[in-house]
Amino acid sequence: MHILDVIEKKKNNQPLTKEDIQFFIDGYVNDTIEDYQASALLMAIRINGLDFEETLALTNAMLHSGDIIDLSAIDGYKVDKHSTGGVGDKVTLIVAPIVAALGVKVAKLSGRGLGITGGTLDKLEAIDGVSIDLTEEQFLNQVNEIGFALAGQTQNLVPADKKLYALRDVTGTVDSLPLIASSIMSKKLASGADGMVLDVKYGSGAFCKTKEVATELAKIMIQIAEGSDKSIVTVLSSMDNPLGRAIGNKNEVKEAYDLLKNPDEADPNLLNTSIEVSAYMYEIATKKTHEEAKQAVLDVLHSGEPVKKFEEMVRAQRLNDSNEEIDLNFEPAYRVAVKAPKEAHGYIEKIDAQTIGQISLDLGAGRHTKADELDYFAGVELHKVKGDAVKPDDVVMELYASKPIDEAFAVRAQQAITYSEQPVDAIDAKSVLKSKDLSQ
Amino acid sequence: MHILDVIEKKKNNQPLTKEDIQFFIDGYVNDTIEDYQASALLMAIRINGLDFEETLALTNAMLHSGDIIDLSAIDGYKVDKHSTGGVGDKVTLIVAPIVAALGVKVAKLSGRGLGITGGTLDKLEAIDGVSIDLTEEQFLNQVNEIGFALAGQTQNLVPADKKLYALRDVTGTVDSLPLIASSIMSKKLASGADGMVLDVKYGSGAFCKTKEVATELAKIMIQIAEGSDKSIVTVLSSMDNPLGRAIGNKNEVKEAYDLLKNPDEADPNLLNTSIEVSAYMYEIATKKTHEEAKQAVLDVLHSGEPVKKFEEMVRAQRLNDSNEEIDLNFEPAYRVAVKAPKEAHGYIEKIDAQTIGQISLDLGAGRHTKADELDYFAGVELHKVKGDAVKPDDVVMELYASKPIDEAFAVRAQQAITYSEQPVDAIDAKSVLKSKDLSQ
Repeated sequence: MHILDVIEKKKNNQPLTKEDIQFFIDGYVNDTIEDYQASALLMAIRINGLDFEETLALTNAMLHSGDIIDLSAIDGYKVDKHSTGGVGDKVTLIVAPIVAALGVKVAKLSGRGLGITGGTLDKLEAIDGVSIDLTEEQFLNQVNEIGFALAGQTQNLVPADKKLYALRDVTGTVDSLPLIASSIMSKKLASGADGMVLDVKYGSGAFCKTKEVATELAKIMIQIAEGSDKSIVTVLSSMDNPLGRAIGNKNEVKEAYDLLKNPDEADPNLLNTSIEVSAYMYEIATKKTHEEAKQAVLDVLHSGEPVKKFEEMVRAQRLNDSNEEIDLNFEPAYRVAVKAPKEAHGYIEKIDAQTIGQISLDLGAGRHTKADELDYFAGVELHKVKGDAVKPDDVVMELYASKPIDEAFAVRAQQAITYSEQPVDAIDAKSVLKSKDLSQ
Repeated sequence: MHILDVIEKKKNNQPLTKEDIQFFIDGYVNDTIEDYQASALLMAIRINGLDFEETLALTNAMLHSGDIIDLSAIDGYKVDKHSTGGVGDKVTLIVAPIVAALGVKVAKLSGRGLGITGGTLDKLEAIDGVSIDLTEEQFLNQVNEIGFALAGQTQNLVPADKKLYALRDVTGTVDSLPLIASSIMSKKLASGADGMVLDVKYGSGAFCKTKEVATELAKIMIQIAEGSDKSIVTVLSSMDNPLGRAIGNKNEVKEAYDLLKNPDEADPNLLNTSIEVSAYMYEIATKKTHEEAKQAVLDVLHSGEPVKKFEEMVRAQRLNDSNEEIDLNFEPAYRVAVKAPKEAHGYIEKIDAQTIGQISLDLGAGRHTKADELDYFAGVELHKVKGDAVKPDDVVMELYASKPIDEAFAVRAQQAITYSEQPVDAIDAKSVLKSKDLSQ
């Protein structure tokens, strides 16, 4: 077989065989296929597409390009959770302790932030003393003992995806649904859980700009999960606005912790998303109905158990000093208040997630290049969110950083907001798609 | 501007602007755009196409990536000729002296063989003592004095095409009509002639497998020529069979020379093609009708003047010993006769050009890699051609080489021939398309 034959087929819109795809992935990982050949094939795939058989074959070839985690040492049902990424998305930090408090195991490997999309690992490291570098034994023991662990990957998981993603990023071939689906699913399958909830975001702050595209992506991922005998629920939710009120690292962890402590005072959208995602994770593990699962989540959330789970996790992952007091309050060295302009009146219609994510990134909460060091104090704190009434000079948000903040940031932040004279719904609707093995 | 924006457009089937295309060519030539980005864009172009404006912009951007030859020092009309490549195509060696004998200047830069397609430079170097390395001054003087010169390029012509072609070759992006048209036309335009005849081949031994594809390619090239104020005639001819009886280097030069000496004994297809191409070259230069031009070609061919022109060229390009006798006879060290099999009867229907080209290449007449040295004696000599009557054990062809010839070659050669019980037309039909400035 020669890579040119594989390129030739896809270029002419013919289906690739399992063997074609295996040959491509093996050759690319082993450096016998050149970047410029891989990018030509990726572009042909981006334009001509992959059918489901091809997408499943690609997922499996990538999955087997590296290690697959064995979670059999963990007792009980293991459920995973993944978000396609968004601005202010700290849901993992909330749902993992909730679900663990319900007795379901969450052995979650997370990633770092990329562009305007935050990463759970960065947020965890914003908690003084917490490490995400657990050995396999520490990781498995913690999940068995506490019910959940959030760690970085130590094994060589899906090296094919790492190499392909880096190439796609610089060749205009990121926005291919089969490539995105196989990238996400190969990593989820390599993580070894029995079932998973995928939070598929759409809107200005997400890869999928429309709900239609998000739905298509969700359907492909469900097919892959079904083809791999995994239970899956995809939750489609809007990312036009940031999720919750904190965008950054220290402030996002605090918002998550505060929600667990006082759910009734939490941002309604963040609370709603957290309850729904937790309920689907619990539903997958127990096969209860969604209503039953949701009631169980509400009950446990008000019992205070999830806060204890969160604190147990922090103590366990503070490998060097597990007795340090847990205090997530923080004070940034610099703050700038952003006020509603003179012409603002009525309600906040939208706070553009893409713009706020970029501001937070530029303030130091994210990375422009992989080598950038994060400022954990930096970020954006929304005082008003979608649906809130607002009048001129109200403080709508604050910008945080450890170094002086240029005035231009406040101007950019003001421009992220649109106002409406009519009342606006505060809660975003969600759609849900499930694998066939779950009650619909 | 960023190359990802250009890729993004073409990926989404939007037209590229002149500036986009200029940015791509400049960046690729200057190494600021990576191979893997160029190949992604090339694949998007291959699949989504380029419209005429884009193709003209690409041609011009490539044309201006290097030197453009100034032929103003040559008196009179300068006409160029190009073939899209074929097996046994030695037409340049025949038409250049014919047209020069009619008083029209041919300042032709040729290329080397690639794959099964022979190259005029290699054939010229198969003549003892002949050099293709002329200085610009030698080249221009020779065209002024003799009427034609056939040389390799010394200037840096169309470096963008060199780099892009090498990449297309290894990324499955050769077979794009706009890319082929701009590659050919940028080189022709850089060669500085006033008008040109393009011999567009189709069939088994050519890039264009069908006449329809060849016609489409011809139309694009005519549009480019018109957009560049050049007169052009495209002659579409079949390359299912090799052209003429000699395939190789020394034998092809001899066939060309023999045709000029004794046109009445020449292979009818080769003679017909040579007369037609010469007539169109003469027609472009003089704006005579095709019938008038053809009559002039027939007259001059029978006058013996073209043989003298050919010999003058050989003497002029024998830079070190211009008085050496011109004798193009040769004797290969090894010959193998290929006979018609027992079941052969009737007529030769086809001798597959692709197969014969590959055999000639493998015998040593061509290169597998750029570094290969040629065996000028190697090649195939057809004793029978399409339309000839044949019976078992007739010698249909001979294989030549300077080293022993494996028996397997004769088997492969036999398999290249198909027979028909019915008589078969010997002469291939041609189609012609012209630029608007020429009488249709």
